[in-house]
Amino acid sequence: MGQAERRCARDLAAAPGGSVAVRGWVTAVQRKRDRVALTVRDHTGEVRCVSQDPAVLAALEPATPHSGVSLVGEVRPGRGEGVQLEIERVESMLPAADPLPLKGNSAAADRLDYRYFDLRDPERFAIFKIFSAVETAIRGYLAEQGFISIHAPRITGGGSESGAAVFQLPYFGETACLVQSIQFYAQMAIGAGFDRVFDIGPVFRAENSLTNRHATEFTCLHVEFAWMHSHEDLMALEEALIRHVLNEVADQHGEEIEELFGLRVNPFEAPIPRIPFARAIELVADDDEPRAQLTARDERALSKYVHAELGHDFVFVTDFPAEERPFYTMAADGEGADGLSETRSFDLLWRGVEITSGCQREHRSERLYDQARADLGDAALDQYLGKYYLDMFNYGCPPHGGFGIGLDRFLMLLLGQPSLQETSFVFRGPERFTP
Amino acid sequence: MGQAERRCARDLAAAPGGSVAVRGWVTAVQRKRDRVALTVRDHTGEVRCVSQDPAVLAALEPATPHSGVSLVGEVRPGRGEGVQLEIERVESMLPAADPLPLKGNSAAADRLDYRYFDLRDPERFAIFKIFSAVETAIRGYLAEQGFISIHAPRITGGGSESGAAVFQLPYFGETACLVQSIQFYAQMAIGAGFDRVFDIGPVFRAENSLTNRHATEFTCLHVEFAWMHSHEDLMALEEALIRHVLNEVADQHGEEIEELFGLRVNPFEAPIPRIPFARAIELVADDDEPRAQLTARDERALSKYVHAELGHDFVFVTDFPAEERPFYTMAADGEGADGLSETRSFDLLWRGVEITSGCQREHRSERLYDQARADLGDAALDQYLGKYYLDMFNYGCPPHGGFGIGLDRFLMLLLGQPSLQETSFVFRGPERFTP
Repeated sequence: MGQAERRCARDLAAAPGGSVAVRGWVTAVQRKRDRVALTVRDHTGEVRCVSQDPAVLAALEPATPHSGVSLVGEVRPGRGEGVQLEIERVESMLPAADPLPLKGNSAAADRLDYRYFDLRDPERFAIFKIFSAVETAIRGYLAEQGFISIHAPRITGGGSESGAAVFQLPYFGETACLVQSIQFYAQMAIGAGFDRVFDIGPVFRAENSLTNRHATEFTCLHVEFAWMHSHEDLMALEEALIRHVLNEVADQHGEEIEELFGLRVNPFEAPIPRIPFARAIELVADDDEPRAQLTARDERALSKYVHAELGHDFVFVTDFPAEERPFYTMAADGEGADGLSETRSFDLLWRGVEITSGCQREHRSERLYDQARADLGDAALDQYLGKYYLDMFNYGCPPHGGFGIGLDRFLMLLLGQPSLQETSFVFRGPERFTP
Repeated sequence: MGQAERRCARDLAAAPGGSVAVRGWVTAVQRKRDRVALTVRDHTGEVRCVSQDPAVLAALEPATPHSGVSLVGEVRPGRGEGVQLEIERVESMLPAADPLPLKGNSAAADRLDYRYFDLRDPERFAIFKIFSAVETAIRGYLAEQGFISIHAPRITGGGSESGAAVFQLPYFGETACLVQSIQFYAQMAIGAGFDRVFDIGPVFRAENSLTNRHATEFTCLHVEFAWMHSHEDLMALEEALIRHVLNEVADQHGEEIEELFGLRVNPFEAPIPRIPFARAIELVADDDEPRAQLTARDERALSKYVHAELGHDFVFVTDFPAEERPFYTMAADGEGADGLSETRSFDLLWRGVEITSGCQREHRSERLYDQARADLGDAALDQYLGKYYLDMFNYGCPPHGGFGIGLDRFLMLLLGQPSLQETSFVFRGPERFTP
């Protein structure tokens, strides 16, 4: 007896006559003395499978919700407009133990412990199907724009400049770190003349944050390119990229997202508003304290303002003061109106949450050394940073810049999920490094 | 004065009249009293740029090999069949310090230290352009076959079962590990009903190996899918995948590879030979010692035999004895001719080097527990492995299997490179975690 051809639930109506196999797991069972009806779900949908054959009934005796099955049979008209499978034989019967590891109302920690089971929920699976579609759209767009994919290392000798938020690990008698960002490696590709690169992969933050927007490991898109003129070029690219991604997601998964998540994906037509930091503070500050960055509250208030006044879910905040931006950020020409020195930098907010930080990098060697010295002190320059980063700028490094997007966070906002625990395939936080 | 439109070296001949900008770095300078000629390289090729304008000559005074430049001018017929740029103004002049960090004959360690400079070699850049093309081809093929991309975590609580070759790191008062393989997470996706998944990203091996084929961190493709019937299905998929990748690479980069590396990419037509392990040993063993795995010498000898006798650069070695395969490997039905119990497993060799290990996984709960107990002992089952891996098989987990391909190694063989140091963007080995 040969293997029957598999047919997915979604494609079953199109099956010609002849035997096909339906493979997935049981979501519902109805038994009467002389018949059985199973609902079987696979990664594409559900199908009703029925039989009155005593051999089939016997073989399906152990079938309970979440049992795995492979059922061979004929596709027949079903009740209503659909089709159903008239089961002829049971190819696999993989029973589920009792009790199941999770119930509908299981605690969040249990859901993470039994993630393989938690993810059987079609809504949760859809998150990762759409995550994959988002990634494909990103890669397609960037390739079209002449970017190549690189794979920066995740173990690094640097990173300890910035202090506490770095995971360290013993490395053959020395101490290495896990990257918080692959920016320096993307810049190395630029210094080598790669021109336009991106990297999608894990980054690590040893931060003891328990907010819904933080994880100790997450998937980050990093984009870096050479020969740009200012941070405007970065924002133009990112805007076009996000527009493309939302269009692709709406085309491919718009209906499913509306059905499962009650949300419409709205690709935007209007340009994303650009608001300089100094103006943003005027718009949202609830006190007169001078400040050099936005709080989470500021970000929410600004997005609310932009949504109400300008009708946009996204907003670029630009020209942050140098005080709170890293040393490699290029300073703006001249000073800001408030006397703070401004930078060629930006954040992108979506629905009140920051999803990007980016800037033009300082590539002029002398200025970069000055800024590094002022920020980190002379000692830092003699060490790793000097040899493996700053030195690169002595050899004709072109003007360049880049930005990162946390993809788990992007998906959280895209699909209206309450936290990264839903959009990380296997979440990592300060209290969680299993399974 | 507005920004001139950039034109890459490759596309320069197609430039219409009007000013364009050539941006890259200088590879050669010729100066006479009243004229200058620079060769400028960008990521697409080289172009000769000339001027007799005294202002341009003055601005290009600091230009030496490896200086960055952006030159605006008119495209004119050059010597021979090419074109050259008649420089009108110097938009950027980014001098290279003297001396340069590397010379033509620099030691390997220096080349890794100054990787940003080492990679300016067009041959080395080509490796990563082709790496990106390989990745795009892999993703395209797998998406067409219904696979989605997942991002498994790289920090894990498991992995210590297998002993010494795992990096450990302090994790908020506990000890976590870096993944050696994301297989268990890919299987978790299968257990959750994701059906077909792949993951491309870093994996980590704390092995003190200094061979040309080993690294402590490398980029791995992992493929896992459900509802297969035996390891034959895995090999069929991998063969089709590699055929597709080689075809794409030959189409897009075949000429360039021939020119730079003196190699022809030969997409194969004939099926990859499958040779059972027991037969492979008969073919290549130089002694009668019983053995359960192939040595590096065996692998080279077998590839040599297959190339000579069967005319193929690839060979699948199948049905390895259970003794040396991990506990999760599905046993074959019946026993092998030599009395060793065989498994539904395979390796893929390419030009004498293993690039893949794969198998059908044991999904039948009782057998899997038995195999785990026999291999790892009862204690291992009570710990991480039992709760977060074995337990999954109690709930209707479908038949499935998978394989991994080390992509740095794949590129090494594809482009005839002497070691992974050439095909890892930034190499990591036991003596190397910088830059």
